[in-house]
Amino acid sequence: MDKVRVIQVKQSVFADNNAEADRIRKQLKAQKTFLVNLMSSPGAGKTTTLKRTIGDLKDELRIGVMEADIDSTVDAEAITAAGARAIQIHTGGMCHLDAGMTEQGLKELGAGDFDLVVLENVGNLVCPAEFDTGASRNVAILSVPEGHDKPLKYPLMFEVCHALIINKIDVLPWFDFDMDKVVEYAHMRNPDLAIFPVSAKTGEGFQAWEDWLRRQTSAWNEQ
Amino acid sequence: MDKVRVIQVKQSVFADNNAEADRIRKQLKAQKTFLVNLMSSPGAGKTTTLKRTIGDLKDELRIGVMEADIDSTVDAEAITAAGARAIQIHTGGMCHLDAGMTEQGLKELGAGDFDLVVLENVGNLVCPAEFDTGASRNVAILSVPEGHDKPLKYPLMFEVCHALIINKIDVLPWFDFDMDKVVEYAHMRNPDLAIFPVSAKTGEGFQAWEDWLRRQTSAWNEQ
Repeated sequence: MDKVRVIQVKQSVFADNNAEADRIRKQLKAQKTFLVNLMSSPGAGKTTTLKRTIGDLKDELRIGVMEADIDSTVDAEAITAAGARAIQIHTGGMCHLDAGMTEQGLKELGAGDFDLVVLENVGNLVCPAEFDTGASRNVAILSVPEGHDKPLKYPLMFEVCHALIINKIDVLPWFDFDMDKVVEYAHMRNPDLAIFPVSAKTGEGFQAWEDWLRRQTSAWNEQ
Repeated sequence: MDKVRVIQVKQSVFADNNAEADRIRKQLKAQKTFLVNLMSSPGAGKTTTLKRTIGDLKDELRIGVMEADIDSTVDAEAITAAGARAIQIHTGGMCHLDAGMTEQGLKELGAGDFDLVVLENVGNLVCPAEFDTGASRNVAILSVPEGHDKPLKYPLMFEVCHALIINKIDVLPWFDFDMDKVVEYAHMRNPDLAIFPVSAKTGEGFQAWEDWLRRQTSAWNEQ
């Protein structure tokens, strides 16, 4: 396995994160790169979902990945093994990425070479939701073991996302998780949220998620 | 059910959070109140663990609970139903509690009336670890579905805790979770960490956790 490139990003110096994020989005649009900001709690399955998605789409899309983590390179190594170009972003203790930090990662990855870049944000259902990274779309993963009440308790994450993946449906029989309720609560926060129940372990439900991702990528890159 | 009291806390004005936390600890010691700061990812089972612990210990200890949440009162309602006095702390979007915010909660709860007070922190494996709340002991919960690599990826949480509860062991057969590895990784971060594999759903493993909590509470309150 290739050695993973690790960069240490510094907190942004920009006073206006939203303006900086808009600038990044314009640049990505111009160079035809669709950037997904993937967020979730620790252990909801961001890396596993990403590995399967890369495996399914790597022959039709050029995919790059930025793995943000406080420490360690385990995720970038897993993504590299799955067949995508990946870099590891170390946040030095920071609990989220802002637009300036994302831009440092995009530069290091060489984002212009890719149709689709995925930023795997720090595992955290709170802080990452507060910072626009410049992504074309925000996607959250909620996993079945976390419980169906999460949209009630972490409202902002569900408000800022365009799509919600509900992962680990293979273990539904062993948890008190009400799929109808989570859909109802998530749509209370954001009526336009696209919701995809999946199992990253078995592949169940991935076709709908990947069709959405494919359509969004095309729409962004072709307009 | 009694209506839950909700307080909205404001970020602390104290320049030195650690000094403020030490001041709170001294005061708790003087009034014989043991304060546990309970932290985990969203959905790891803080409230369920707490409900069972309260049920088992409420006849021998006077227990009070502060439920911190960005929004909603679902947890405080559940705790009140379990038979402990509880207040709900709303952080107004903040991803953690600091010492000053904890003090506002202790005052509202009337901490002096209790042998044991549990602060259920915001569900977040990153930020709460950075702020000393003034607690006598820090306890983290990691749940089986989150995976055994979490001590590698979120080091600070495991460094600052005195005890680690590994919850949801009833679903071990359905997850690739290596108990030996998680113990090894957690002890790499903190060799003195007391580790308790439990199922808050079935009660398995609770005796060891509750014995630890009982001993720690006695030691703090009787010295």
